[in-house]
Amino acid sequence: MSYSDFSKNQLLDELASLKAKYTDYVGRGLSLDMSRGKPCTEQLDISSGLLNVLSCDDQCVSAQGFDCRNYGILDGIPAAKELMSGMLQVKPEQVFVGGNSSLNMMFDTIACMMTAPIAEGCEPWFNVKDRKFLCPVPGYDRHFAITEYFGFEMITVPMTESGPDMDIVESLVASDASIKGIWCVPKYSNPTGITFSDDTVRRFANLKPAAKDFRIMWDNAYCIHDVSDVTDTLISLMDECEKAGNPDLPIIFSSTSKVTFPGAGIAAMGTSENNMKIFKKRYTTQTIGSDKLNMIRHLLFFKDFDGLKAHMLKHKAILKPRFDVVADKFSQYLADKGIANWTNPRGGYFVSIDVYPGTAKAVEKMCKAAGLTLTSVGATYPCGNDPEDKNIRIAPSYPTVEELSLAMDVFCTCVCICAIEKILEQ
Amino acid sequence: MSYSDFSKNQLLDELASLKAKYTDYVGRGLSLDMSRGKPCTEQLDISSGLLNVLSCDDQCVSAQGFDCRNYGILDGIPAAKELMSGMLQVKPEQVFVGGNSSLNMMFDTIACMMTAPIAEGCEPWFNVKDRKFLCPVPGYDRHFAITEYFGFEMITVPMTESGPDMDIVESLVASDASIKGIWCVPKYSNPTGITFSDDTVRRFANLKPAAKDFRIMWDNAYCIHDVSDVTDTLISLMDECEKAGNPDLPIIFSSTSKVTFPGAGIAAMGTSENNMKIFKKRYTTQTIGSDKLNMIRHLLFFKDFDGLKAHMLKHKAILKPRFDVVADKFSQYLADKGIANWTNPRGGYFVSIDVYPGTAKAVEKMCKAAGLTLTSVGATYPCGNDPEDKNIRIAPSYPTVEELSLAMDVFCTCVCICAIEKILEQ
Repeated sequence: MSYSDFSKNQLLDELASLKAKYTDYVGRGLSLDMSRGKPCTEQLDISSGLLNVLSCDDQCVSAQGFDCRNYGILDGIPAAKELMSGMLQVKPEQVFVGGNSSLNMMFDTIACMMTAPIAEGCEPWFNVKDRKFLCPVPGYDRHFAITEYFGFEMITVPMTESGPDMDIVESLVASDASIKGIWCVPKYSNPTGITFSDDTVRRFANLKPAAKDFRIMWDNAYCIHDVSDVTDTLISLMDECEKAGNPDLPIIFSSTSKVTFPGAGIAAMGTSENNMKIFKKRYTTQTIGSDKLNMIRHLLFFKDFDGLKAHMLKHKAILKPRFDVVADKFSQYLADKGIANWTNPRGGYFVSIDVYPGTAKAVEKMCKAAGLTLTSVGATYPCGNDPEDKNIRIAPSYPTVEELSLAMDVFCTCVCICAIEKILEQ
Repeated sequence: MSYSDFSKNQLLDELASLKAKYTDYVGRGLSLDMSRGKPCTEQLDISSGLLNVLSCDDQCVSAQGFDCRNYGILDGIPAAKELMSGMLQVKPEQVFVGGNSSLNMMFDTIACMMTAPIAEGCEPWFNVKDRKFLCPVPGYDRHFAITEYFGFEMITVPMTESGPDMDIVESLVASDASIKGIWCVPKYSNPTGITFSDDTVRRFANLKPAAKDFRIMWDNAYCIHDVSDVTDTLISLMDECEKAGNPDLPIIFSSTSKVTFPGAGIAAMGTSENNMKIFKKRYTTQTIGSDKLNMIRHLLFFKDFDGLKAHMLKHKAILKPRFDVVADKFSQYLADKGIANWTNPRGGYFVSIDVYPGTAKAVEKMCKAAGLTLTSVGATYPCGNDPEDKNIRIAPSYPTVEELSLAMDVFCTCVCICAIEKILEQ
């Protein structure tokens, strides 16, 4: 029964019963940090083999005969480009393999365009005083932090079940030349877990931006990260852009941070020849090349893209029970209450829940008091400002199933308490 | 006997004899690239142990109990800071450990100051239209490339036996607030091999720049890289700056690129708390942290700074014979000719030679025709422009002693030929 159908007394009774439960939870001494999408130890252990797969000098020589212990090869060894091209859905020759962090590559990409024009006849973005960036919400805080750091005004665009609201995106980019780009996590999106539909991808590929230097920052972080037996499919943005005659629109990123080790994976980007020329002019000044031995470790460990996908089944086996716990608890506590909406993603690292409007911060605070740290409320919006104070990102990967189960009991109890208190205020 | 004391006929005879030798060298099919300061295979092999020193999960946990396979620790694990502080001559808490490239950290440092003011009340350098940077010459081309990329006017300062000419440096920085920094390789300088004297370091520490945001880019790349039994000593710039009340002046860099593997070492920077605050604001947006497993590999391999210094003795044993060949050949061919000046460094990776003015490019071309690729003439000057066309950087590390011996025969023969031809023209 929905809380909206409860009488005041029924609400008060329910509140009293929930508060008693909450007091009990506080007493259990829970201490759990679920603030980030951090793989658990079990997940790290399945990549143990990566540690000693490269153990002698001979293995350091690439297929082309290059000694990868030494200086050289700015954009990564060819076999690593080939491996990463599968994640990026681009051709191997469009790939630049970097260091251990795709976030770093995204930051450097924006930094590059701040001081060097990406398209002929355009200004470096530092000179565009009213520069703007589109931010689908809820979205990823570290993306928003980059454009905040570089002084962009961030314009939010609502997410739908099939991606950002493309009517709004199309209309904004067509009318305002100071809008320079958009952040996207196209598959198993952070945090809603949805995957952009074929239609959404095609509409992105066919955008007609007023700014010649408008670019799509396509962070395909969860491209092969299924947590369900039924999986989503994302079509290639690069293919669609090339068909549409817009090859320079997309800059595509991914990494093995959530495949092997978050601290010691390999990251890569893919983009058109025109764009790459500008980025390489910067990279060639910035570095002699990234860690090629770590590329070789990954190549020896996975052999090829199929090996990489096979490895992801082990992650799925670890993560699926965790995502199931979240779905089950939400359903058990919240299904018929009319106070929350959430997603049941088939992949990625997060579950997004909209609690009763105006109560997300209160839920966060109550959880914290019970020993449960959530992702900061507001983090899924630019500058940490969720105007309706309702979205919370759940990161189920790190806790054990038992910890997570208790954490979700606590969380759902808090969601109900805060909703009732808000309803009673109104 | 000096060529200046030769009669015209003596010069013509000498030229004919040298040209016959040169023709013989061309016939030997030499094919050698000495363009960069690249460690040789023998040097890489002494770090083989680094490849398999980290082989199991337990070793991935830091002394503080942090699982280094996972996300986190922006500025490097504490033990790695401790290790690198010895190279940087700063306190461990002043260290930021990065990825595999100190060049990358230097680039990011300049990039940071381009868009964010490093000192209160100053402008981002992008807004300083006539921004300038001091470049001691001859110097390191990759330094100059960074300030060229970011649009600085580069003002050359002559190098002396004890460092840059400090009278000029002091006078320039005191009078022009658009001069924002200076590039330095203070020990076994690239390419002259000299080490800054105590007096030079103290004069740097006591600079009174007109620009509040003037910074010293102190690339201590060769801090422990001796190639002689008699070694140079460099005092700590940070200590001297702190004594002088100028703690924010220096930004200090080093790496293990020429200690372990050039492609897979660890890099670090050290600077004051004030500066670090500005850089960390950027780094925290740019990345979650660098590869901590590679830090652990280095810690397991070296144990501590003494272990690192002991390892350098093995490099010295490989490099000393190579530097000796260069010194011997120069002495043998050029000592009494009055056509060239060169250095006999006690460490580092290079020997710098000034050939007869106006002949460096001609020497490069003749060497190339005989199969010997040198560092591009001019590379040791900003924008590749050596106004006197005389400086050439010799990089003796990569070839075998036998190859190098032949290469120096070719080189010295070319130096003499080009000098005589130039003298005869005059």
